[in-house]
Amino acid sequence: MFFASDNWSGAHPAIGEALMREQSGYANAYGASPLDRKIEARFNDIFEREVAVFFVGTGTAANSLALSSVGRPGGVVFCHKDAHIANDEGGAPEYFTGGGRLATVSGPHGKMTPDELERIVARYPADFIHHGQPMAVSLTQSTEVGTVYGLDEIAALTTVAKKSNLPVHMDGARFANALVALDTTPAEMTWKRGIDIVSFGGTKNGCWCAEAIVFMNPEQAREMPFIRKRAAHLFSKTRFISAQLDAYLTDGLWLDLARHSNAMAERMRAAFRQSATARLAWETQSNEVFIVLPKGAAEAARKAGAQFYDWLTPADQPGLINDGEVLVRCVTSFATTEAEVDRFVSFLEAETLTQQ
Amino acid sequence: MFFASDNWSGAHPAIGEALMREQSGYANAYGASPLDRKIEARFNDIFEREVAVFFVGTGTAANSLALSSVGRPGGVVFCHKDAHIANDEGGAPEYFTGGGRLATVSGPHGKMTPDELERIVARYPADFIHHGQPMAVSLTQSTEVGTVYGLDEIAALTTVAKKSNLPVHMDGARFANALVALDTTPAEMTWKRGIDIVSFGGTKNGCWCAEAIVFMNPEQAREMPFIRKRAAHLFSKTRFISAQLDAYLTDGLWLDLARHSNAMAERMRAAFRQSATARLAWETQSNEVFIVLPKGAAEAARKAGAQFYDWLTPADQPGLINDGEVLVRCVTSFATTEAEVDRFVSFLEAETLTQQ
Amino acid sequence: MFFASDNWSGAHPAIGEALMREQSGYANAYGASPLDRKIEARFNDIFEREVAVFFVGTGTAANSLALSSVGRPGGVVFCHKDAHIANDEGGAPEYFTGGGRLATVSGPHGKMTPDELERIVARYPADFIHHGQPMAVSLTQSTEVGTVYGLDEIAALTTVAKKSNLPVHMDGARFANALVALDTTPAEMTWKRGIDIVSFGGTKNGCWCAEAIVFMNPEQAREMPFIRKRAAHLFSKTRFISAQLDAYLTDGLWLDLARHSNAMAERMRAAFRQSATARLAWETQSNEVFIVLPKGAAEAARKAGAQFYDWLTPADQPGLINDGEVLVRCVTSFATTEAEVDRFVSFLEAETLTQQ
Amino acid sequence: MFFASDNWSGAHPAIGEALMREQSGYANAYGASPLDRKIEARFNDIFEREVAVFFVGTGTAANSLALSSVGRPGGVVFCHKDAHIANDEGGAPEYFTGGGRLATVSGPHGKMTPDELERIVARYPADFIHHGQPMAVSLTQSTEVGTVYGLDEIAALTTVAKKSNLPVHMDGARFANALVALDTTPAEMTWKRGIDIVSFGGTKNGCWCAEAIVFMNPEQAREMPFIRKRAAHLFSKTRFISAQLDAYLTDGLWLDLARHSNAMAERMRAAFRQSATARLAWETQSNEVFIVLPKGAAEAARKAGAQFYDWLTPADQPGLINDGEVLVRCVTSFATTEAEVDRFVSFLEAETLTQQ
Repeated sequence: MFFASDNWSGAHPAIGEALMREQSGYANAYGASPLDRKIEARFNDIFEREVAVFFVGTGTAANSLALSSVGRPGGVVFCHKDAHIANDEGGAPEYFTGGGRLATVSGPHGKMTPDELERIVARYPADFIHHGQPMAVSLTQSTEVGTVYGLDEIAALTTVAKKSNLPVHMDGARFANALVALDTTPAEMTWKRGIDIVSFGGTKNGCWCAEAIVFMNPEQAREMPFIRKRAAHLFSKTRFISAQLDAYLTDGLWLDLARHSNAMAERMRAAFRQSATARLAWETQSNEVFIVLPKGAAEAARKAGAQFYDWLTPADQPGLINDGEVLVRCVTSFATTEAEVDRFVSFLEAETLTQQ
Repeated sequence: MFFASDNWSGAHPAIGEALMREQSGYANAYGASPLDRKIEARFNDIFEREVAVFFVGTGTAANSLALSSVGRPGGVVFCHKDAHIANDEGGAPEYFTGGGRLATVSGPHGKMTPDELERIVARYPADFIHHGQPMAVSLTQSTEVGTVYGLDEIAALTTVAKKSNLPVHMDGARFANALVALDTTPAEMTWKRGIDIVSFGGTKNGCWCAEAIVFMNPEQAREMPFIRKRAAHLFSKTRFISAQLDAYLTDGLWLDLARHSNAMAERMRAAFRQSATARLAWETQSNEVFIVLPKGAAEAARKAGAQFYDWLTPADQPGLINDGEVLVRCVTSFATTEAEVDRFVSFLEAETLTQQ
Repeated sequence: MFFASDNWSGAHPAIGEALMREQSGYANAYGASPLDRKIEARFNDIFEREVAVFFVGTGTAANSLALSSVGRPGGVVFCHKDAHIANDEGGAPEYFTGGGRLATVSGPHGKMTPDELERIVARYPADFIHHGQPMAVSLTQSTEVGTVYGLDEIAALTTVAKKSNLPVHMDGARFANALVALDTTPAEMTWKRGIDIVSFGGTKNGCWCAEAIVFMNPEQAREMPFIRKRAAHLFSKTRFISAQLDAYLTDGLWLDLARHSNAMAERMRAAFRQSATARLAWETQSNEVFIVLPKGAAEAARKAGAQFYDWLTPADQPGLINDGEVLVRCVTSFATTEAEVDRFVSFLEAETLTQQ
Repeated sequence: MFFASDNWSGAHPAIGEALMREQSGYANAYGASPLDRKIEARFNDIFEREVAVFFVGTGTAANSLALSSVGRPGGVVFCHKDAHIANDEGGAPEYFTGGGRLATVSGPHGKMTPDELERIVARYPADFIHHGQPMAVSLTQSTEVGTVYGLDEIAALTTVAKKSNLPVHMDGARFANALVALDTTPAEMTWKRGIDIVSFGGTKNGCWCAEAIVFMNPEQAREMPFIRKRAAHLFSKTRFISAQLDAYLTDGLWLDLARHSNAMAERMRAAFRQSATARLAWETQSNEVFIVLPKGAAEAARKAGAQFYDWLTPADQPGLINDGEVLVRCVTSFATTEAEVDRFVSFLEAETLTQQ
């Protein structure tokens, strides 16, 4: 019953096997090996255009260096107030952008709305030096609260951004989960809707450390090799990241893993939709489930070994939680089993009944 | 005949097996898993004292973040002019120290001399703001040109540093190679000789990405968790670094691999000491060998698939190379075989004779 | 009718005369002249304790370097959402703190409340690396909206800060205006209430460029000479700043100028308290006045040469402005005359009547 | 006998009067006043082309922000080993360029030679990430050791820079002194010889704080307003810098002051060319004079109140100083009088004779 986060999982066996295959022999260091080149090129196929790709080891690196590449002095990045870059990266985005600021945008269920984005961007007129200058918009797909931007919603946000000539970054730490939730293609979910740069995550979905920064316009990536090197994020044996991505992207493994992960979340959601005492806090579409539970039931589940995090009540849903209840987040992963989900659901149901 | 660098090698099978073992199951993310804690603690044994340990993925990260942790405004780091931090890290040390400067110190065979270090440090009086303020001394063990500081040499340098209250960092990308070359212990080679912080490298010696920043005084590491996080160098699945180090440090594997690597270099050195036409540029003690060759022989070897780098003639050895000759660097690794070395030596001998 | 800002004024004649006196002769550069030393020492008298003082040329430099001196990796500064550092310094505080974040705190009339401060600080537990670590609290005295923290209010905020071991910075760009409004002493308004570092502003109150960073605990200022130099904020002819401060601090000129400025604001406030159609948006205590006016009257005043800025309606006072009205800010200065105020008030009254 | 530095002087009376004239009245803050615009425009005339101009308060700010504006990740600036940016700015250039490196170039008498510049630039191939990437060339005019680059010398250096597409910055802290020494025009000494950005210094030549960053290509200055603001170097009452420059540039005052300063240096040089015991260390063309003296004479002069600095013997002139001698630097300024020079020369002559 490990639902703390998808990064508590290990690595898919196919990823491990790819690493094993790569361990013998010699290859050019620092991302110049044939395998590195081959996997970089495969991203052209995935995105259906010529892209520039940079492998890094953490999602925070992917996000921060991506933003750094479009950095401007006194720059301001617009993102949802729940965004990972705004809450969980220890200041890395601000650091790598030379003191950039994250101006947060409200919106229900973890999604910026175009109107609210426009309102906040308008606070930073392009030629007004005192407030700082707009630099980029960053959206998270799927979001931090388990929802997924629809294709039209993405297009609406990038339209606002383009009015101010702002590049748009997509934090795709859970890119695959969103993709299969929407049943669409990488091209449709990104550049065809105005996305310029993607943090393409593999770690949370079955790799052990494999993230790629993907530039839809390679020209925009001109300084990126130096940015990555200066940030100490260029691995000498980069081919071990490439090997992971090789397995990840072969025969649609990445999509299968995301589908499995989402299905496990849906299994949990379905159970709680019918529960008498626990309930879904809001509907989600990816591999995160937010549940309102009696506190006692949550504690009992933890004692029984279940792992999940408490979550702050969203400011815009003040009446969500009643006395004696708690809001928790459960995340499924490629490694989650039906049995784990069922055991967790049954445990909570039984416990809740007991407590009444 | 892959002698380009030890980071062109892959990973030792024991490392790969450790990764495979770790891939199933769940564990706390961000360095908080039981395995992470266990391997961190093992460094206490290795260094025979309570140390603070931080795993990162690249040697450049280890060096840069280590220096950042002792950073001071307008700070100056003193290192040999051939140091990796001064030449090969794309400005990462300067970046992570907020614009710190690397003041380079000369010295034969890649080693700073105490006198020269003292002379250069004296250029930056501690309370004179215009030049910048001394911040740290960094020495590379083994050095960039294959030599190894003796224990007395280390002590002499740290004595100079301590006179100016400067912490001393050891870039140990090839820590194990130096250790076995000196036939000493980590404690003797570091804190017993005045070293404060070590970049403990595993990648070049059989891991695929495993580096540790080791603080001899844990109090000095107080800000390090935040420094690493802000630099995006905290891995969510850190346990895959720990797993590598687990295998690496078990049953002295790391020392065995370094002994092998050094022995392969010695095998090559022995051959060239007796060669009629090629010769050692200087004596080395670790896993790097510097050879002066006829240009034609070098070219022929490359055509035959050998990999090695040309090297600049050291400024203090102007007459080292004659017309028609070239200086090259060969690096052996845990993966180098006797057959590879012998084939390379034989090839060059034959080729040289042919060309005469 | 120049009420755009107090920094639209020039310099008080006594300041100019001091500069003229200093212009002949020679003196040590870079802040080491006898006059520099003498004026630095005078701050000990003003603050009734041994302080460390650093002159700089802009208020943004004073604030940013002060915060930089207590900077921590991934650091978070807590300040009111209306704070100058959060809105008007082009990202300088974030830049000089190495990517620090400004976590903003709400509170009516430009003042943080202790409860709200505590609530926001609590979001950043001291040892939780992902959110960033608390670094400092910064409060503005007088505030950006013309109010002044009472001595008890300051003490209450610093008490919250000290619970989390946070140093407290006071942005005193309008320090003198607050001081005379409270009729208190620098010591009472700062360290006796828990303030650690003050940006002591002279520019807005009659100097042309004279700001001082004052550390109540000189030990905390150890790195400051290097921080200022590295930031290029050490003037070679610092004595011209010292000369300004010499005149400024002699015979209480600085307090007289602030009293005058505040009195001019009070003259304006008194008039609008009785006005039939214009009204004070909220009561202020220093040299800023916020007025709600008919739009037409504001436009007419501008056409007639009056200078003042429109102001955004505070989020917590949504019903402040009616249709056809506008909220404006008027700032008085040492240079404002009674005639200017009276002319402005009369003009608006007449104009408003006309428009009805 | 104040020859410590030209920034030990005060301000020319005309500068002071301009400040006095500006002190009354109101004007737009933050560089937007009519006077600011007028003086900015005057630089178009001075440089005989449309330029972009940014006023700042220190030479270090001018240099550092100029370099920051052409900054690149992992960037390397090439400058002479004696350059002010490399020795006397406390790390500001490195800081503001995000950890840029200063790669120093040797050359006799403070001047880079084109061959040596080319040799050092070649160490940083444009697409080789490990060493860092070339970013800019910076030359100092006049140099730190009193010499002046001839127009052809400037052209030769910028030709080398352009081959690598490097912008060229001129540190003109003593721009006027060089200009009158060469008897040429600003256009001839800068953009007509390939200079892109100039730090145009006024402080050392009679202003109290007035420096301008001048971009020959305004397009290159696009981010500069934000860079300056983020660095806290935008003064609210910028017009007091403009007022200084107004007086400075009116009726050729700046050139007259530089001519005077250079003439005083030449008076000193002429005396020491004929001296029996003291001698010029090398010939200079601007307002700095380097003299080799008997140590005793130097000490006696200091006791008599003379101010000057000892200077390190240049590495390429090892035999310059004999036992019992000392190398000193004397700097003249707009404020230096013939009487001061003559008294200094006579004193030294007398003292030297006494000591023999």
